[in-house]
Amino acid sequence: MIIDFLADYYRDVEKYPVLSQVEPGYLQKRLPKSTPHNPEPIETILQDVQEHIVAGLTHWQSPNFFAYFQCTSSMAGFLGEMLSTGFNVVGFSWIASPAATELETIVVDWLGEILELPKSFLFSGNGGGVLQGTTCEAVLCTIVAARDQMLSQIGRENLLKLVVYASDQTHSAIQKAAQIAGIHPKNFRAIKTSKSTSYALSPDSLRAQIRKVVEAGLVPLFLCATVGTTPTAAIDPLDKLCAVAKEYGMWVHVDAAYAGSACICPEFRHFIHGVEDANSFSLNAHKVVLNHFGLLLPLDNLRSFMRNHVKMANLFEGLVAKDKRFEIVVSRKFAMVCFRILPSALSDKVHKNDKLDIVSEEDANEANRKLLEFINMSGRVFMTHAVVEGVCVIRFAVGATL
Amino acid sequence: MIIDFLADYYRDVEKYPVLSQVEPGYLQKRLPKSTPHNPEPIETILQDVQEHIVAGLTHWQSPNFFAYFQCTSSMAGFLGEMLSTGFNVVGFSWIASPAATELETIVVDWLGEILELPKSFLFSGNGGGVLQGTTCEAVLCTIVAARDQMLSQIGRENLLKLVVYASDQTHSAIQKAAQIAGIHPKNFRAIKTSKSTSYALSPDSLRAQIRKVVEAGLVPLFLCATVGTTPTAAIDPLDKLCAVAKEYGMWVHVDAAYAGSACICPEFRHFIHGVEDANSFSLNAHKVVLNHFGLLLPLDNLRSFMRNHVKMANLFEGLVAKDKRFEIVVSRKFAMVCFRILPSALSDKVHKNDKLDIVSEEDANEANRKLLEFINMSGRVFMTHAVVEGVCVIRFAVGATL
Repeated sequence: MIIDFLADYYRDVEKYPVLSQVEPGYLQKRLPKSTPHNPEPIETILQDVQEHIVAGLTHWQSPNFFAYFQCTSSMAGFLGEMLSTGFNVVGFSWIASPAATELETIVVDWLGEILELPKSFLFSGNGGGVLQGTTCEAVLCTIVAARDQMLSQIGRENLLKLVVYASDQTHSAIQKAAQIAGIHPKNFRAIKTSKSTSYALSPDSLRAQIRKVVEAGLVPLFLCATVGTTPTAAIDPLDKLCAVAKEYGMWVHVDAAYAGSACICPEFRHFIHGVEDANSFSLNAHKVVLNHFGLLLPLDNLRSFMRNHVKMANLFEGLVAKDKRFEIVVSRKFAMVCFRILPSALSDKVHKNDKLDIVSEEDANEANRKLLEFINMSGRVFMTHAVVEGVCVIRFAVGATL
Repeated sequence: MIIDFLADYYRDVEKYPVLSQVEPGYLQKRLPKSTPHNPEPIETILQDVQEHIVAGLTHWQSPNFFAYFQCTSSMAGFLGEMLSTGFNVVGFSWIASPAATELETIVVDWLGEILELPKSFLFSGNGGGVLQGTTCEAVLCTIVAARDQMLSQIGRENLLKLVVYASDQTHSAIQKAAQIAGIHPKNFRAIKTSKSTSYALSPDSLRAQIRKVVEAGLVPLFLCATVGTTPTAAIDPLDKLCAVAKEYGMWVHVDAAYAGSACICPEFRHFIHGVEDANSFSLNAHKVVLNHFGLLLPLDNLRSFMRNHVKMANLFEGLVAKDKRFEIVVSRKFAMVCFRILPSALSDKVHKNDKLDIVSEEDANEANRKLLEFINMSGRVFMTHAVVEGVCVIRFAVGATL
């Protein structure tokens, strides 16, 4: 019955507004005030789910979903999840579930091999990885490891001197992880990037920042380099950044949450060139590789799945580029296009009405926000925005499964 | 097909050795060396799962599983999980999934109301709770909150002076959380408990420890009190501990991971008496309440489910108590029995063989370990052990769903 329900959901998903149209607090008004004392038939429950839950969903699996980065799913992933839920084991130690522990080890090594990570990153090379709940957890683990390694050398009393670096394009999860780990909030340093490097972190900027910090008597601890930033999918140059970090004995973590999965295709692998000099690496398999059970999908299918998304993003980019009113803000590398209405386009329009000719960046931002809101409120497509160097851009991320 | 597979699994689960009998590294030998390039039919995959995965499972859902604390499941939980997997939404903000965000809020409040938590712990009273992945995450959140609140008053340079308390019966997750949060490892203090208080933390011991710390110029920050410890299900006296902590401006977190769920029955509610003076509270709903989707089960069913477990544990306790060779080490309060073979029982046996008459506690520990190993290797039952005050006890935790 649930399977039929879900089959109907997927059949109809395009009919629902992709961005939920409910008002905050809507569900409170519809559900009982306290836990029901008596059971209800499954038919009634599914009717409630259809009426009250589906209405409040933003449909991540809709083909009209182009927001954030996708959370892909697949039939293989769904079936794997069912098996895992059915067995309902808790693998907190080997003996508590040998199969879960060993399968994780093996599959994580497979993933590392597909990505051509250095042998030292794999279990088979005395390294190894684990599945974490989120990138934030992965980064927290590595910051804590780096912190305790450093403090064991320089003494725990120096905790408040440790400095964590990232670019200003880095996901806020890194800053959060640093804060949880007890890094002084002033010692999380987001280094400025600019359009000149396509919002990639410049090794020279990093070096300049580190020098300042060392002069001030602080200790550079950690750099988070990103392959595929959230705002614009920018790619930090791993090899050069690692070289600078190495000079100062710093730990480099590579956050490839979005673009890491693309590197399973040989033509994208060069984007993580230099990872062999980093200390740790994380990616969100669910963003592109159809979740970890999806790894059980054959590699060739995964690669062509990836390539299709990039092709579609390329097509969209071409269409936008043809229209002179729009600008592709950052050149596309993966399956995300960052674009906006140009101030000049607005200026023309305003001019025709015989008003002010010059449109400020702020007015352009406002116009782009309004356009995005208008698009999203239509319920037909859902995209999100980002602000880079004060400029509001619309992000169109391709990655739906359907 | 997966449903049929799982139905067969549950039908046969009692036939499998409940504790997996595989050797470490078994799966590596059976799986391919790298990711398969081409797809395989589902029948082949399920055959592989049956042969290679099921053999390596420790069967948490088996009725013969009495180890750790159970991870209960239910049909309602399974169906809820299927729906959730099917929708595959990511609820990291309200707009990303209004239904997920609001359902969590509502259901967590329901749970708080069933437990008769003070209004200030609920969203409806300007408090609120969230679903976390593990107790360790919940405790990490509260330690970080307590830490940053305290440091905002006394200055961040005092981070290394902060002290976190728990009893020596507390789960290691608390120590781990303190370490992640940057608390000086020396400043995590596990306070000794003894059989005289049934391994509950004594408020006098806490006060004595705090005084020492304050005299040494350190700052008492945080106490984790436990309701239902992992080794023996001991219950720390919340009201008295909170009173002591309050005098020193400390944060009290109540970890009710195991026994908290039992408190949905009015006759057990008194075990969390005093929670209204604590700062935060966590429990593992999956341990007893059939996971969070299980909350959608009617309350009366949940309560009778709980009571049945306690009744069965009571029955087992009676049987063990009748046999003079065994000792009930700590009197049972919930659905877990802690017992062991007495040294005296072994002594009789040894005496008959005309050898040494006195059996040391160490020999008794060894005998209990051997007994447990023998039981577990039979594959018929799985229990775990705990060491309290140097004494090895066998834990028999009732909680299976079947």
